Amino acid sequence: MADRDRIAAALRDLVGADRLVDDPAVARRAARDSWVIAVWRSLGDRLPAPAAVVRPRTTQEVAAVLAYATRERIAVVPFGAGSGVCGAVLAGADAIVLDLGAMRALRGIDERALLATAEAGLLGSDFEAALNGAGFSMGHFPQSIALSSVGGWVATRSAGQFSTKYGNIEDLFVAFEAVLADGTVVRTRPVPRASTGPDLRHLFLGGEGTTGVLTEVTFQIHPLPESTRREALAFPSMREGLEALRRTMRAGWRPAVLRLYDEIEAGRSFAGAANAGESLLLVLSEGPAALTAAELPAVAALCRDVGGRAIGAQPVESWLHHRNAVPGFEVFLKQGMIVDTIEVAATWDRIEDLYAGVLAAMRAVPGLVVASGHSSHSYAIGTNIYFTFAARPEHSDDLEALYFRVWDAAMQATVAAGGTISHHHGIGRVRRAWLERELGSAYPLLGIIKRALDPAGILNPGALLPEPA
Amino acid sequence: MADRDRIAAALRDLVGADRLVDDPAVARRAARDSWVIAVWRSLGDRLPAPAAVVRPRTTQEVAAVLAYATRERIAVVPFGAGSGVCGAVLAGADAIVLDLGAMRALRGIDERALLATAEAGLLGSDFEAALNGAGFSMGHFPQSIALSSVGGWVATRSAGQFSTKYGNIEDLFVAFEAVLADGTVVRTRPVPRASTGPDLRHLFLGGEGTTGVLTEVTFQIHPLPESTRREALAFPSMREGLEALRRTMRAGWRPAVLRLYDEIEAGRSFAGAANAGESLLLVLSEGPAALTAAELPAVAALCRDVGGRAIGAQPVESWLHHRNAVPGFEVFLKQGMIVDTIEVAATWDRIEDLYAGVLAAMRAVPGLVVASGHSSHSYAIGTNIYFTFAARPEHSDDLEALYFRVWDAAMQATVAAGGTISHHHGIGRVRRAWLERELGSAYPLLGIIKRALDPAGILNPGALLPEPA
Repeated sequence: MADRDRIAAALRDLVGADRLVDDPAVARRAARDSWVIAVWRSLGDRLPAPAAVVRPRTTQEVAAVLAYATRERIAVVPFGAGSGVCGAVLAGADAIVLDLGAMRALRGIDERALLATAEAGLLGSDFEAALNGAGFSMGHFPQSIALSSVGGWVATRSAGQFSTKYGNIEDLFVAFEAVLADGTVVRTRPVPRASTGPDLRHLFLGGEGTTGVLTEVTFQIHPLPESTRREALAFPSMREGLEALRRTMRAGWRPAVLRLYDEIEAGRSFAGAANAGESLLLVLSEGPAALTAAELPAVAALCRDVGGRAIGAQPVESWLHHRNAVPGFEVFLKQGMIVDTIEVAATWDRIEDLYAGVLAAMRAVPGLVVASGHSSHSYAIGTNIYFTFAARPEHSDDLEALYFRVWDAAMQATVAAGGTISHHHGIGRVRRAWLERELGSAYPLLGIIKRALDPAGILNPGALLPEPA
Repeated sequence: MADRDRIAAALRDLVGADRLVDDPAVARRAARDSWVIAVWRSLGDRLPAPAAVVRPRTTQEVAAVLAYATRERIAVVPFGAGSGVCGAVLAGADAIVLDLGAMRALRGIDERALLATAEAGLLGSDFEAALNGAGFSMGHFPQSIALSSVGGWVATRSAGQFSTKYGNIEDLFVAFEAVLADGTVVRTRPVPRASTGPDLRHLFLGGEGTTGVLTEVTFQIHPLPESTRREALAFPSMREGLEALRRTMRAGWRPAVLRLYDEIEAGRSFAGAANAGESLLLVLSEGPAALTAAELPAVAALCRDVGGRAIGAQPVESWLHHRNAVPGFEVFLKQGMIVDTIEVAATWDRIEDLYAGVLAAMRAVPGLVVASGHSSHSYAIGTNIYFTFAARPEHSDDLEALYFRVWDAAMQATVAAGGTISHHHGIGRVRRAWLERELGSAYPLLGIIKRALDPAGILNPGALLPEPA
């Protein structure tokens, strides 16, 4: 407790007593993200309280905290909004949580340059609502949009539901302000594109708080689209649906949404829309009226060529209304069941094997109740698969071990199929042991970057890379 | 000479005598790129021969050379094909030139995943021709395509003439093999997209050979397009033309080519196509027939809204035939004139000021003969301007000083207008002094990356970052 008192006193001096979180429940919630294992442990009261939770109001306060932590070799865990599902935020008892929740200002919208700038802690849905009010959208809709921060999007390499047209966060992230581990503040300017050395945005994109703390982000925005067209199609199986996705991307069409559900998820989420056993594809095209008038029929025709059957727009409307409403992990945990999602990706030559291989591997784990998948982000060279599984141990003491057996099976099968172990959720702690296999001979580069930017090793230790010895 | 002999002997031992370039003229050509100042100095016999030029055949040979150079603290200058125009390659008398010209194999085309892999020294035009033979294209057409290597494209953050549809090199670069300064070989795998920490490609994209040596690259490709449509339009001035570009990008159209020439360049390159004083826009749309049938008329309509006048497809055809034929710098130098290009970029709110400001600044330099510009790469948030200037000193002894006065004027005006100092040519030596002003507080990050990846400082010293003390 002596250390905790010393840290709290130092932080009070640095940023003021009112910036320290006193409420123990609030402090504990800021010490973890929404990783189901963290939720499970917190339900069992098995997570420590962090040394302190500080909520800076300004970049200068962030810098003061980090400079202090580097001097004193104290771990700092940046916290955006806590929606991560991989355990990237999981503060130990000796760590300071740096909660960006008091830095939520929208700094400005440039309607001519199509840019919007916000403090890193702003909630995604607040950001998008402000843009909508001015006639714009970012086009970035992660399912977590109401629970995640704009800075967190960058730190985790977020992907949104409309990414096929608008791109993922790396395509929308234009400029930033960040604080390095030693308290140095760095800022970049918005330019459309440059050839001025390595792109420094990528030191922080996907850094998961281990390379610096983002304090401000500037994103590309666009006017609200002139038109939108929607259609759903049923396919005999995932195989034909994946082929339709591949042909659509290969032809050069870029509808905002291409979501292909396997027969389990089609039956669960769109009961009655397709026949039993069929896969279901949602297509949403938006943009100029002349574009969507050409795009939607062209995509539908490509789908028909491989056995797709148009079933109307209603499933797309239904998805648009319910897309962000998912039951929390707690509901299932309280019933003795653990549910999680695993998003991976692969090139088109490997994706069928990946889909089948991961499902088979998970289903072979005793205790698995159900496993299913859908594709939600397609590219010219491949697509992702977003798996959902539920597992129920005989005894709740075995819940964590069962969970990790399912993950292990999925990760092994992904690597065996030549896929990537994460499409957009990140590494955190749940995938950490697999990252070296993912990156192979390039893995040491991550450590080289980390040590160069944070030689004292204070920034989010244990996320992305191994816990320090 | 003792050092040179020792280095040559060591390299013979490492990779074999036949991999050393003996011809002094060939060796001197590999010690520089096509920066006009290097051409000028070489015409005056004012460039030293490098200590050695080695042409490895394999990644292992590259690794052996780099490990040796790091041990012995000898500078290594990677050389692709020498088409750079900023002085990124300019080897001193004590440096080893690592010429990748013997590593030109096409490793493979994956027709399903839409990927192609080549050794880094392969010429761009050979790569594209091989793709065309199989029914594909990369869609990446830098003007230097016949003179530049696929690895060089990555190292300089190349942009191609069809970038508005297909993206720049960072959008097409999927995976790589590189050798670090200490000889470590790192490889990544092709995946469509990942959230597995910072994107390691960006350590080498734009590195200009200072962070590692690329030995193999994998790019995204696409099938040859189903259709293409072309149209040229004349505008009263650049102002209306830039507004047409902005509205086209803002609406979400992505024609492969949008090239807007000011009245000087329109008159020079498309005589008679537009009226005197008019700007000229080339539009080329390609992709599925239904897309181009919608896109070209829509773009033409947006152009008419701001005063554009359709003038037929002939200027586009003419450009397609002559687009890569430009006179070399030597022709002008031998006439006592220096000619160069300066490509910069800015967001839409700043681009008119940038265009006018840079031209005015260059024209204010005594000795300037002509300055003009065009926009060739547009984005939702802004565009580039590619300036060309010619200057003639009273005495040839003053040629370099005059050249740097023009560059200084252009760079100052670019920074004043809030633009970026390079859109796609890179930094090399000509822009080095301006890079700190470009990146501001983020500038030290470049040095942090460099020192982390190359602690001995052997990789291309003097390019991008200052010469070591």
